[in-house]
Order: sequence, then C-alpha cells, then structure tokens
Amino acid sequence: MISLTDVYHAVTATVPLYVAMFLAFISIRFWKLFTPDQCAGINKFVAKFSIPLLSFQVISSTNPYKMNLRLILADFVQKILATLILGGVTKFRSGGGLRWIITGLSLSTLPNTLILGIPLLRAMYGDEAASLLAQIVFLQSIVWYNLLLFLFELNATKAASVTPSTEATGVMVTTGEDEPKDGGDELKLRNGRKYETLLIFLKVGKNLLRNPNTYATLVGVIWASIHFRWGVELPAIVNSSIQILSQGGLGMAMFSLGLFMASQARIVACGARLAAVAMAAKFIAGPGLMAISSFAVGLRETLLKVAIVQCRRLYPKELFPLFSPKSTMYIQKS
Amino acid sequence: MISLTDVYHAVTATVPLYVAMFLAFISIRFWKLFTPDQCAGINKFVAKFSIPLLSFQVISSTNPYKMNLRLILADFVQKILATLILGGVTKFRSGGGLRWIITGLSLSTLPNTLILGIPLLRAMYGDEAASLLAQIVFLQSIVWYNLLLFLFELNATKAASVTPSTEATGVMVTTGEDEPKDGGDELKLRNGRKYETLLIFLKVGKNLLRNPNTYATLVGVIWASIHFRWGVELPAIVNSSIQILSQGGLGMAMFSLGLFMASQARIVACGARLAAVAMAAKFIAGPGLMAISSFAVGLRETLLKVAIVQCRRLYPKELFPLFSPKSTMYIQKS
Repeated sequence: MISLTDVYHAVTATVPLYVAMFLAFISIRFWKLFTPDQCAGINKFVAKFSIPLLSFQVISSTNPYKMNLRLILADFVQKILATLILGGVTKFRSGGGLRWIITGLSLSTLPNTLILGIPLLRAMYGDEAASLLAQIVFLQSIVWYNLLLFLFELNATKAASVTPSTEATGVMVTTGEDEPKDGGDELKLRNGRKYETLLIFLKVGKNLLRNPNTYATLVGVIWASIHFRWGVELPAIVNSSIQILSQGGLGMAMFSLGLFMASQARIVACGARLAAVAMAAKFIAGPGLMAISSFAVGLRETLLKVAIVQCRRLYPKELFPLFSPKSTMYIQKS
Repeated sequence: MISLTDVYHAVTATVPLYVAMFLAFISIRFWKLFTPDQCAGINKFVAKFSIPLLSFQVISSTNPYKMNLRLILADFVQKILATLILGGVTKFRSGGGLRWIITGLSLSTLPNTLILGIPLLRAMYGDEAASLLAQIVFLQSIVWYNLLLFLFELNATKAASVTPSTEATGVMVTTGEDEPKDGGDELKLRNGRKYETLLIFLKVGKNLLRNPNTYATLVGVIWASIHFRWGVELPAIVNSSIQILSQGGLGMAMFSLGLFMASQARIVACGARLAAVAMAAKFIAGPGLMAISSFAVGLRETLLKVAIVQCRRLYPKELFPLFSPKSTMYIQKS
C-alpha cells in the first residue's frame, strides 16, 4: 500500500523534526545548556507565538467552502467509535474513568496533525493531501480540542472534590451510585451539579480565552472565509510578519518537546506495560478505527490512505509521561 | 539612485523583522510574559542554535572560488580608513581610547549583514546582491569579527589593570607615555607585555572555541569549498535538519533583540547627544567611507549601490545602550 519512495519521502520529512527534538534533549541532558526556567521561556515562546501563528497560517489557507465532507464525516465517526469503545472498556474496569477516556481519546484520535502530519503527508502525497489534513487540523482546533479540554477540566474538578487519599490511589469514582433517596437532598444535589457544570464551563471558557491559539484559530477561520469568498489577499507585509515567526514554528515546537522530555526523570515515565498499551492505541486502534470509519463513509484510493496515514505517525507524545492528560495536551495548553 | 519600488521592497523585507522585535518588546514591557531568566533562555537558543545554523547556511552557499575581489577590497579599504580616522580622532580627544575605536568601528563598518542585510538587499537587487553580501558576511565572520573580539578583550584586560576609581570615570589611559627610563625595568615591562598579549590571545581563542558560530563558520567554509569544487550536495535529510531550526533564525534573532531592548531601563541608554554621534557614524560616516573606497577600487553601477546600501541599514543597535561594546557584539557573543 505504501511504496519505498513514500517511505523515503516520509523519512526525509520527519527525521529533521526529530533531530531538532534530539538536539534539545542532549542540550539539557549532556550539555546542561538551559536551566528549567530558561526552558520554560522557550516553551512559552512556542506556545504563545510559534504555534498560534502556525495554526493561523494553516487554517487561513484552508478553503472552508471546499471541505471534503466525507473525510470530515469519517473523522467524526472515528471519534464517536473511540469514545464508545473507551467508555465501554472503562465501565468494566476499576479506576481511571474519565481520565482514561481523555488519555485514550487523545492518543487514538488526536494525531499531532499540525507539527508532524502536514510535513509528512505533503512529502508522501503532495500538497493536496496536506490541504486535506489542514481540514482535520481545522476541526481539531475548533471542535475536538475544546471538547477534550472540557473533559479535562471536568475531571480536574471531580478529582478536586474527592479526598486526597482517594486521589492518590488513582480512584476517582464520583458518579454517586448510592445517592440519598431523600427528595430534598436530591434536589440540592441536582442544583449543586448544575452549579458545578456551570463553573466548569466558565473555567474552560477562561482557559480558552487565555490561549492565544483560540484567537489564532478564530481569526484564521474568519480570514479564510473572507479570502476564499472575495479573493482578498493579505498585504505582503502582514503575511511576511506572520511568516517570520511562524516559519520557525515546527522546529521550535519539536525543540520545545525535546526540552520537555529531557526535564522528565524517565523518558518512558509510565512504565513499559502502559507504554505498550499506549502504542497499541496510537498505532493500531487509532488507524484501525479510522480505516473502518473511512471505508464506511465511502472513502477510497488516495483519500483513504491519507485518512489512515494521518492517524499513524510516531509522535514523541508516545515517549512522554503518558497518563498525565496534561502532557498529551502539552503543546497547545502550556 | 534608489527608486520607489526599491523602497517598497525594502519596507516589505524589513518591517516584518521589526514587527518580531516589537512583539518581543511589548511582551516584556506590557504583558510581562517572560522573566529575565526566561529571556536568557530564548537568547541562548538564538545564540547557540539559530544564528550559527543561519551562518552556516549563508556561508556554505557562498562560492569561495567566485568571490568578487573588488567588493572585498572595497570592504577592506573602508575598514582601514575607518580605523585610521577613529585612531586620529581618539588621539586628539581625552578618554575612551580603544573603547571608542571598537565602538566606532563596529558602528561604522560592521553592518548587521546576516539578519537585516540579506533580506533587504535580496528584496532590492535580487539574489545576486544577496550572494555578494554573503561574501561580506563570510569575511566578517572570519576576519573582522575576530579582530574586533581581540580588541575588545585587549580593552577588557587593560581596563582590569587600572584602578577601579579611574575605570568608573571612564578614563582608561594605559598606554604609559611616562614609562621608567631604566633599562632593566623596561625589559621587565616588555616581557610583562608579551605575557599579557599572550594571555589575551589565549582568552580570545577560548572565547572563539566556546562560540558555536566559530564552528558553524569553519564547517561552512569547508563545505562550501567541497561543494563548489566537486559539486557534492548535502543529503536532503541533513539539509532539512539544518533548515528546520535555521529558517526561524531571522525572526528569533529579532525577537531576542526586542527582549534585550525591553530589559534595558531606557531605550536610548547613552543619551541623545551620543545617540546622534552614533547615528552619524552609522548612516553618514560608514556609507560615506564605503562609497569612497568602492569608487576608489573601481566599483560601478549596481555593485556600487549594493556596497553602499549594505552599510546604511537601520539596525536596532542604534537604539541600544550604545557605548557598551558588549551590546554591539550582542548577538554573536551572548
């Protein structure tokens, strides 16, 4: 299905990204070049400037009037399937709960499209494939990422409401199967929940408003709608101003990931067994689900390949402290 | 001599660089985004990775077998003239001495070729002009910068040998007009001086060996010699690995300058009068000397324009604490 030339192109497109990451890693571990606070400075630069500007560039160059509806549908179906399966699995297993669903979803359905996906697919299938992927980035930034952020905050709020000792063992059951049957108490509880949900929404909203990527996405969508409807171009000077900081974005993002990896005590922080589960989720379950969904909605040929390959990239996330959802959302959130 | 189109191209090429600088400036002064230590991290990244990789790219793509000898000669003559004039001026003025010569030379003869010059001249006169400028960068990295670094260390050593009170008033006369006439003492003095010079050479050497830019320049020269002699190409994967970090170099360097500016108490630290002198050195004396030298060695037409324009760029150095030689060598040294 994938030819040797594809492999060569894929290697040429992705190895440099790992070189940047590796350089950061050795500059911490062996050269002791940056202090933790200095790393934080570089990470902040990436999160506040490089990534938002890169997002803007990708999103604003996606034609919103020519989205591939089948691809979007397949992406949607894959995520629903993954949620159902993960929900089912956690239902029959003790511990974890929401936290497992968040990590599982982010591992199996949220590929790191922006950083690795676009260069890789452009190398393998040309610019058209990259533009297909840009549509997925588009949805990811607008829908999926925010949904996951919401779940993440929901979990954080729930975790905060259980006693510290329970939290330490990783058990976070707060669904309250054995609630009081008394009517008044139930009403109070329901009001309390409504209030809690409102608080979570407010917190997610606040986080989104604080994240420059939100604005970059929004402005990108608005500009794309104007640009592709009326053919208005960005003035050269504005375009270059954005490019001058965004064109280093890929390298800087990978460098920043390398710094983060080096700052961890162990590279595979979660242990070999969990890492294997994560790899399986990423490289087998994710693309498998995407293949099923894509085939189901009628994707064929190159489009089918693009849909599957975009799920199957070796992203350094795999090497991270895996089961902290914070780290899986590292780039966009920090 | 310079058309409106040239001006438009120049503006489009340079304004984005200042936007990056301005962004850094307001992110410190108004948003308080980075702590001083975090800024140091970003600056270190620029000095250790972006700039050396950018230098390598520029130098390794300059054909050393096709240098424009007249341009190099003009560049050389300009620097000799500037040194003679500065030496003459400081001879008849009290105070300053070496320090003034260093600052004067760096202001009038060392344009910030790599960061602002190449994009600007490419925009105005095309790729050929940029390749001419690359030759000047080449010489600057190999000869002039090291010579200035030597003078800088010489001055630092001399300054260290005078009493703190003299240093505080800025007077650093150590040429010793009134030396003892006794033969033995003179011999001792001469030996001491030899030893001092040796120490300075060692210190400059150590600094150069610690600077990644030295290696980038050296490897760049070696690779250019191989590449343009035998037509060997860098493997695509190596080339992309370098590009991924260097292509953000320009923006990052300007961003880092903005951080530096914002960290200073006053933007024009040296006061209005000295700033005016510095501007005159930069925008009138420098290009003037270059015009004289270029004309003298027989440069005409576009080449003459390129030679002069490359001396006349508004570099943020002007806005810096001007008379600290440390700041004028900021990018390459920090």
